[in-house]
Parts: sequence; C-alpha cells; structure tokens
Amino acid sequence: MEYKFLGKINSPSGLKQLNPNQLPLLCEEIRHKLIDTISKNGGHLASNLGAVELTVALHRVFDSPEDSIIFDTGHQSYTHKLLTGRFEKFDTIRKENGLSGFMRPQESPHDPFVTGHSSNSISAALGIARANSLLGKKGRVVAVIGDGAMTGGMAFEALNNAGQYKGNFIVVLNDNKMSISNNVGAIARHLNKIRTKPGYYRFKDSVEKTVKNIPLVGNTLRDSLFKSKKLLKGAIYKSNIFEELGFTYLGPVDGHNIKDLLNIFEIARFQNRPVLVHVVTTKGKGYLHAEKSPINFHGVPAFDIETGQSNGKKAADFSSECGRLLCEFAKTDSKLCAVTAAMTYGTGLYEFSRQFRQRFFDVGIAEQHAVTFCAGAASAGLRPVFVVYSSFLQRGYDQILHDAAIQKLPLKLCIDRAGIVGEDGETHQGVFDTAFLSNIPGVSIYSPTNFSDLKVMLHQALYEDQGISAVRYPRGGEPVLPDDYKTENKPYVIYGGGSETALVTYGRLFANACRARETLMEQGISIDIVKLNRIFPFEKNLISELKNYKRIYFFEEGIRSGGIAEHLSAELIQNDFGGKYKIIAIENKFVAQSTVESALKKFNLDSDSMVRIISGE
Amino acid sequence: MEYKFLGKINSPSGLKQLNPNQLPLLCEEIRHKLIDTISKNGGHLASNLGAVELTVALHRVFDSPEDSIIFDTGHQSYTHKLLTGRFEKFDTIRKENGLSGFMRPQESPHDPFVTGHSSNSISAALGIARANSLLGKKGRVVAVIGDGAMTGGMAFEALNNAGQYKGNFIVVLNDNKMSISNNVGAIARHLNKIRTKPGYYRFKDSVEKTVKNIPLVGNTLRDSLFKSKKLLKGAIYKSNIFEELGFTYLGPVDGHNIKDLLNIFEIARFQNRPVLVHVVTTKGKGYLHAEKSPINFHGVPAFDIETGQSNGKKAADFSSECGRLLCEFAKTDSKLCAVTAAMTYGTGLYEFSRQFRQRFFDVGIAEQHAVTFCAGAASAGLRPVFVVYSSFLQRGYDQILHDAAIQKLPLKLCIDRAGIVGEDGETHQGVFDTAFLSNIPGVSIYSPTNFSDLKVMLHQALYEDQGISAVRYPRGGEPVLPDDYKTENKPYVIYGGGSETALVTYGRLFANACRARETLMEQGISIDIVKLNRIFPFEKNLISELKNYKRIYFFEEGIRSGGIAEHLSAELIQNDFGGKYKIIAIENKFVAQSTVESALKKFNLDSDSMVRIISGE
Repeated sequence: MEYKFLGKINSPSGLKQLNPNQLPLLCEEIRHKLIDTISKNGGHLASNLGAVELTVALHRVFDSPEDSIIFDTGHQSYTHKLLTGRFEKFDTIRKENGLSGFMRPQESPHDPFVTGHSSNSISAALGIARANSLLGKKGRVVAVIGDGAMTGGMAFEALNNAGQYKGNFIVVLNDNKMSISNNVGAIARHLNKIRTKPGYYRFKDSVEKTVKNIPLVGNTLRDSLFKSKKLLKGAIYKSNIFEELGFTYLGPVDGHNIKDLLNIFEIARFQNRPVLVHVVTTKGKGYLHAEKSPINFHGVPAFDIETGQSNGKKAADFSSECGRLLCEFAKTDSKLCAVTAAMTYGTGLYEFSRQFRQRFFDVGIAEQHAVTFCAGAASAGLRPVFVVYSSFLQRGYDQILHDAAIQKLPLKLCIDRAGIVGEDGETHQGVFDTAFLSNIPGVSIYSPTNFSDLKVMLHQALYEDQGISAVRYPRGGEPVLPDDYKTENKPYVIYGGGSETALVTYGRLFANACRARETLMEQGISIDIVKLNRIFPFEKNLISELKNYKRIYFFEEGIRSGGIAEHLSAELIQNDFGGKYKIIAIENKFVAQSTVESALKKFNLDSDSMVRIISGE
Repeated sequence: MEYKFLGKINSPSGLKQLNPNQLPLLCEEIRHKLIDTISKNGGHLASNLGAVELTVALHRVFDSPEDSIIFDTGHQSYTHKLLTGRFEKFDTIRKENGLSGFMRPQESPHDPFVTGHSSNSISAALGIARANSLLGKKGRVVAVIGDGAMTGGMAFEALNNAGQYKGNFIVVLNDNKMSISNNVGAIARHLNKIRTKPGYYRFKDSVEKTVKNIPLVGNTLRDSLFKSKKLLKGAIYKSNIFEELGFTYLGPVDGHNIKDLLNIFEIARFQNRPVLVHVVTTKGKGYLHAEKSPINFHGVPAFDIETGQSNGKKAADFSSECGRLLCEFAKTDSKLCAVTAAMTYGTGLYEFSRQFRQRFFDVGIAEQHAVTFCAGAASAGLRPVFVVYSSFLQRGYDQILHDAAIQKLPLKLCIDRAGIVGEDGETHQGVFDTAFLSNIPGVSIYSPTNFSDLKVMLHQALYEDQGISAVRYPRGGEPVLPDDYKTENKPYVIYGGGSETALVTYGRLFANACRARETLMEQGISIDIVKLNRIFPFEKNLISELKNYKRIYFFEEGIRSGGIAEHLSAELIQNDFGGKYKIIAIENKFVAQSTVESALKKFNLDSDSMVRIISGE
C-alpha cells in the first residue's frame, strides 16, 4: 500500500496541513499500517486501533512537543509514534535497537515520559504542568488514560491532587470499557452509567432552561424546596465522580468521530482549570477480528491478517500451566482462591475464573489492594494466591512487607514473567523480584525450571510453607532439559560431585548450565551444577557444601545488586571461604518497639558490642 | 483517678452491660486515661481523643472479635485497646515489650490486622469479609478510616473493588478534616461540601416526599422532564462520591454524640451491601490544648497536662535541619521545590511551606503520586525534592524504579527516620531503604552522621549528581562525635591507617565506632575506621583499599539481606579477598528490548558464554 498522507507526515505540523476532510483517509492509512506492522512484529493491536482518531485529533489541536501529551500505558501510543516522525522506523517496533512499544523519552522529544506501567500518566503530567507554570513555559499538558488504568490507586491520588490545580490541565479518558479484559469495579460501573445515560449527567444548561420554561413549576420548585438558585442547580443535575474531584467534565464523545473530537479538545484547551474529556472508543476498531475479540488482540504475536490466526501454534507456557495447576488444587481445596489485578488472561486464570467463579477475584489494576486483600483473606482463613507479573508486583512492595510479612500471613504469590521478558523492554523485565522480595523478612522464593518443578514448588508453597511464599517462573514455555532430568523436592540439588568447580544457578538457566557442562566435559573440564530450587533463604547445608569447591560461578537471570548471588557471597565470605569478613547488621527480621539504644544493643551495634566483637572477648 | 466504669470493662461484652446514660461518663474516663498515659509515655493524642465516642459506639453495636473492626493507621486505636482487655497494661504502651501504639494481631484477637501504614484497612477488611462469606462465618467487618488516609490510592482501589460486593460491609469515615496537618486535595474539599451542606446530599426520602407533596409540581416535573420515576430520583438528589462508587452513604453524623452514633451504626449493621458511615469528629476533642493545636498534639513526647508543654526542650533534629537547609538553598535556586505526602510538620517543611508557598506541594497521603509527580516536574526542568519517612517511601518503590530511574531523571529524595526509629515499632522502622534503593540502577545513597555532613551531602545530591540521589538521616538529633571531626566531601574516608583491622560503617553508627576505637586503643588494639559517605554505589578505590586489611567488620543499621554490607561482600569476594567466587548476572542496569536469547547472550548467561568463562578462554 502507498501511504499517501501518512508517508508525508514527519511531525504534528505536517498533520496540521491536511485538509479536515482528509483526516478520515489518514486514519484509514494509519489503521492499515498498524495492522500490517503488528501482524509481522507482534505487539499491542486492539488498544492502538481504538485510539487512532483520538490521537489524530489531539495532534491537530495541541502542539507537541511544546505541549506534552502522555499516553498512559504506552499500549495506545503507536499512532502517536506514526505522527511524530517515526513512520519510517515503524517496522522496527519492539525489535532490538528499534522503536519501543511504549512511550520512551530517549526515542523522541514527543514522548515526554515513560509509561510502561499503568496509571502513572496523571501524576507525571501534573508534575510537568506545575513545572511549566513555575518556569514560565507555555506548554499545555494532556494525560490520555484508559478506563482500566483509572482503577489504579495512583491515578486517583493524582486526580485528588490535580483537582485543586488552578491552570489548564487536561485528562483524556479513553473509555473502551476494558482493561486488557473487561474492566471491573465501581468506577467501571459508574462510567457505564455516564456512557449510557449521557443526558442524565450533561446538558446542564438545557435542563435548567427546561425547568424554567415549565410555567410555575420552575419557580415553585425552587422556592419550596431550596433557598438559592445555586443550590437548585447543584441539586437538580447529577454530577459525576470527576466533577466531584474538581474537574470540569466534558463528554461523553464518540471517539471515532474526528469532528466531535476536534471540537471537544478545542473547548478543553481553553479551560483555565482541570478538565476531564470522556472519549468513548471501541477497542480493536476497524479490524473485524480485533473488534470481535479485543481480549485476544490486546497483545499478539505475529498473525495472519486475513484469518486473524497466529502463525505459530501456541505451546503450553508457564502461565497456562500455573492456571491449570491452581484449578487442580482448587478441586480438592475449597479454601484456595485466585486473585488477579486485571490480568485474567495473561496470567492463565481464565479457566479458574470459569470453574471457580466464587473464588476468583479480579480486583482491577490495583496491585497494592490485591496484595492486602489477599493478606486480609489469609488472616481470616482462606488460601488466596495472587498471580501477577513480576514487574507489576513492584507496586505491592510495601504491602507485602507491611501488610503480610510483619504479621507472618500466608500470602502466596505466583510470579509470572520473572526474568527477562524480551520485546516489552525495560519497563516489563521481571528482574527485580529476587532482590526486593529477598530483603523482606520471612519470604521463601522458588524458581522452577520446568512444569514438573512448578507443580512440586507450588504445592510446597501452598501447603507446606507457613508464611509468605513466592513461586517465580519465566514468560514462555519449558526449556530443553536432559532426558533423565527429574524434579527433586529439595531446596537445592547438586548434579555431579567431586569437581573442584561449581556452577550455581536456578530457574530456566539450569537448562543452559546442563548444556555447558556437557561441552566442558568434552573439553576435559569437570564441573558440578548446583541447582537452587528454593532460591532464598538458603538451606543451611548449602554453604558448607559449597565451601568444598575451589571455584564457584553463579549465573543469575536477575538484577545483581541485592540478588541471590550477592546474598550467597555474603554467606561464603563469612564462612571462611576466603578472607575474614564479618557483617554485623540487623538480621533479617522486624525490629520490635524499644528505645533506639536498646535496639542497637540487641543487634550488637552499640559501641560496647563493637569492642566485644572486635577484641574477641 | 478511680476508673469506676473503665476499670471494670475487660471486653466489649462488659461495655454492653453499661446503662446507655453511663456511656458519656465512660467516655470521660477514657479521655482522662488517654491524656494521663500519653502525657507520660508520649504517643498519638489528638487523633485518639477524637475517636472516643466513635469507638465506644462501635463496640456497643458490633461483637468483636467475631466482628472484625480495623482501625486504619492505628493512631486512633487507643480507646479500642482500652475496651478490649488492655486497660491494665495500658501504661506500657509504646514501651519495650509493652502494648503497641498501633493495631497488632499478636497482641489481641481484637486487633484483626496490622495498620501502621495508612490506607490499608479497606483492602484488608474486604479480604476478611470475602473469607467470612466463603467460609460461612458470621462475623461482620468494619474498617474505620480517616479522611486523611482516604487520600491514599490504596483506599480508592479498595473502594472501587468493594463497591460491587453484595454483602454487609462497613466503612466508617472518621472525618476530622485533617491528616496529621490539614487534609488536602479534592476529596477533602468534597467532604467539606458534604459536611457543611448535609441537606444537599442526604435525606433523600424526605426530599422525595416534599416534592410529591407540593400540589401538581411533583408530578408535572416528573412528567415533563424525565420519563421514569427512577430517573427523577437520581436526577433530583445529589449523590456524593461514595454513592457513585457503589456504597450506601449514611451521614454526616456528629462523632461526639453517642446516641446518634449508636443509631447510625445499627442502621449500617443491617444493610446487605457496602455502606459508608460519615462521622464528623474533632481532633483533640476534650483536651483544650489539643483541640486548639491538633497538629502539635498529633504525636507528642511526654508533656505537662496543665500547660500542654513538652517536658524536654526540643533540640534541633535532622528533620528541622533538612527543612532549614532546603530553605537556604531555595533562596538562591528558584527551581528548587519541596514535596511532602501529608507530612509538612514531621519532615520539617513548615518553614519552607511558608517561605516558598508556590514551590511547596503537599500532595496528600500519596507516596506513589508524590514520587512520579516529582519525576514529571524534574523532567520538565524543576528540581523537586521529596521529603519522606523511610518506611513510607516503601510505597513508592515501583515509581522510583519505573518512573524515575529508567529515564535517569534527577529525582531527589530526603529520607527522614532512616534506621531504627524506636517507639513506633515494626511498622515504622526505616531499615529497608538501603536494600530497596540499592537494587534500583543508578541511585546514589548518602548517609550523613551530623548536620554538617547533611549539608555537604544534600548539596552534592542536588547540585552535583545527575540522576536519582537519596540522602537518608535518622530520627532525632546529632550523635556525639570527637571534637576534631570535620566533614569531608568524599565518598568515603579512612580514619587511622596501617591497621590490620578495618571497621566499616556509615551514618550515626560512626559515632559509636569512634568510641569503640578509643576503647580498643586503650586495650592496645589498633583499628581503622572506614566511614562511608556515599554508601552506594561504592567508589572504585574503596575495594582495593579494603583488600589491604586482614579483617573487616561492617556494622550496619539496616536490613542485612540486600543491604550495603552484603553488596560489599560481593565486591570483596570477587576481588580476590579470599577464595575464588565470581558472579555473572544482569549488571546493575536496565535491560533493553531484544529477544530473550540476545539479552541472555549480552549478559553472558547463554551456554556458550558459560563455557567461555569457565574454561578461561
């Protein structure tokens, strides 16, 4: 296809030179380009198809990059990329060294902020607005946020703060009635009401006119019931949640009608206060397969445009296997519940949600709440399992620590996409959970290599461990293992024996280690492999066994600083594996109330203890 | 004073045996006990004085512990403790081995959940409600949450999720118009509207009756304007934000009128759906000094009841010193801004908020938003400083990592109450920031020992460092240092030289180390002290200098797992300080998009690289 319009637009100013009636044709070209590219590279399709007109209209009305437009959860930013000088490079999207599938400031001045994780756009936008105002810059700020992302508490914190801002500040609610799957919760219901009964919430002026025009009634009502006109006005027209948070509400507007969108954004642009523009869109718009099943076309691998089918056959992966195992356990365990933060499909819980409807909870994009909800349920006797992507669990760090760990509650975490995730890039890598979980007292972390490991470890986590347990597994399926590999239900296993060299590792890297060992053996080099199953805390005997080696290599698919290998080095160096080194610190537990002096003494951190330890008394 | 009623109440059932007209007398005794005890032990006074009647009424109507009552942010739970068998031990509150100043499940079956950090009660309560319902238990669940805590995003996530719950579920909004200081944001304004115009929001039934009773008007209006009765009902009465989130709203009710409280809780108790009871209270109620200045009496040291004055003279502490320094810098730096999450006073920012009104932002109890707001402002050219307690910053972990670190934005953190905090106990210890910040790529962490250190490090963080910098300092004032101590603007300093033994430490422990060294010298034992100023990442030369020692002792006032000492051990053991040990992992940076295979190869985690490294090619 020749991109007659799109091919010539190198910046938003190019877009502004088009004739208004050419815009629908441009949108058609954009959709074609999106479908064509994503069918080859994979990526987020349905959300982007829904935001085409919305994005075109924004770039007609606003002047990026002087004006900052932040697309929450970059899922919906592909059209924005096409219109801001990235058409030529668009084929490289999600490829190494290519364009990012999310907003990425290093990539273009038109991407003002990183938005890989959900619900952060309003906070960032408000920060930019405040900065522009204090620094005397002219730029306006627009945050475009989905109705799904609006369920995240962070978005609410930002709305609450922004509602008192005195300048122009625009939030565009891209309401497609969905997160990745159907949107849930009270906000979703509230939006549905606004959407389906627009007259009920808007057209205040015309309602007021109507009241006044009914002979006698208008005045009588006013006089009888209320004392002032202002009170009447407020009482008679129903406001919505955004107005109550201090925003001027504009909408709802059809998100695929360019003309309406241009009008409403023009109005928004001239308000001297916070405005929320409610835009109703269809996820997957313009591509029949995606409109029909927007969930399946949220994020897709390469697919055939004609049939909508993925090219490769979808093999079983850790997500679906975890979902299957949870169903299996739930059959005989009536206390088992599964909780997701708007990720029923991605985390393999669809079957569970159908089979155990009463025991399945989609709490919205709300990882903080999800963790504490589980902790509460666990405290009252249920066995809740929060299934979540590693990178999104970062949002629940404080809740794991404060709401679950301090009480030693049996919070169970299934951590999907742990390790390197590939094409989604920096924002979605699951490489921090090892570090942030292992600094929380009382958390056991397991890392299965294949499905059989997963089953054993999940069972251990759910039914043997008392406190918090996390089972973390990578995106995708099983790695290739030696034929004779069998899962052993032990914290660690040593393969080989008697070598001077140990290779320590865990998770899917174990497969690589097995291959490496074979090659080394061919070269006459003998090594043992130490496979960690419970990767943290360490089994007591591990350290004494490791001390027998002359050389240890730890290969870890996780952040180094604070990761498992570093924890191991601390154990080794303190156990005479090498020079003398001793750590005196707060051991891995919570510090109870006392005076500072008393606590310091307890942990040998006062000067007397220092003297005692160093002088070897 | 003889506690005629209170002294005999060992449980809520004891409370239920009192005659209703004895309840005000009981409340008087409770207030007396609160003031008496807190004036000796210190603690949270004003918030507890405001919740006396509220708590008495709750325990009359509900049956704890079968019913679960969760007080959000345990600040307001003292009366609850007095009524649930802890009167005799009440003098031990906040003392070592004594009662906790917050809710604490290990302490009593009447404390269903830990609530040291704000805004978690609704999530926990909903988890318990779901569990009770699935397990066939009868207990009702009540979350008592302040209007301040309601600004936390987590509370919103929970309300959004709870709004669709089908059973009895009660949220009591204890609205005293304040967080620790005045409550801020749109929610606060909205509550003020509800509070001051109650008729505008409530009494739906009576309004409906009135409309109907005006001859003709009721029907005419209905017929002309709207088609259905239901629509009329919705349109004519203004709902508030809680109703729009799916809750039945009851209130506002005077929180110091026992009779009204008993009535409204009785009504709430029999709703078969989520209910929000809006209770208006006066912070500090019943103690004149506290009513007059509730902010000063939020958390207090021991004080004189008569005068309201603290017994000890308040010495300068790190909080006030940090606030002072920020004011000093702000005078010549027009880009400097200060941000707090509802902690203007606690973090020493009061003066800043007065002197630099335009550049001061209290964003509510909203640490997630605060971090990203700062990141947004920094991306647009301001120099925002988020001043926050260590333990509360845990809420912003993902935002520091995802919203600031990935973009290498100059986010500046002043971390107050880092290290052991004393009486507040487990939930408030600032011992995790070293671990969770040091696993985020690109974060520099500083730990001053005295005010002069603080100034130098703050200057370094704000004006020399490019990326994220955190300056962490303890609660309280300066420790006693040797007279000749002078701050040196270097990443680390070695005191002594030529010893075989090194003591490594940072922050206030340096003072203890100096004392220890003196004592050791008297005993003929020579040591060097290695004082870390930038505690992470390590200065390059540090490791080679440390290698010269035969023995190294690292004393650290922070969590061991993932803390600075562990990081150091990993460096030492890999630099021939002892046996051979090598870590191969994802070095401390973000992983860019690529295939999994390609990324593994880049970090030497594929089998070929394993062969290459181990065989020493």
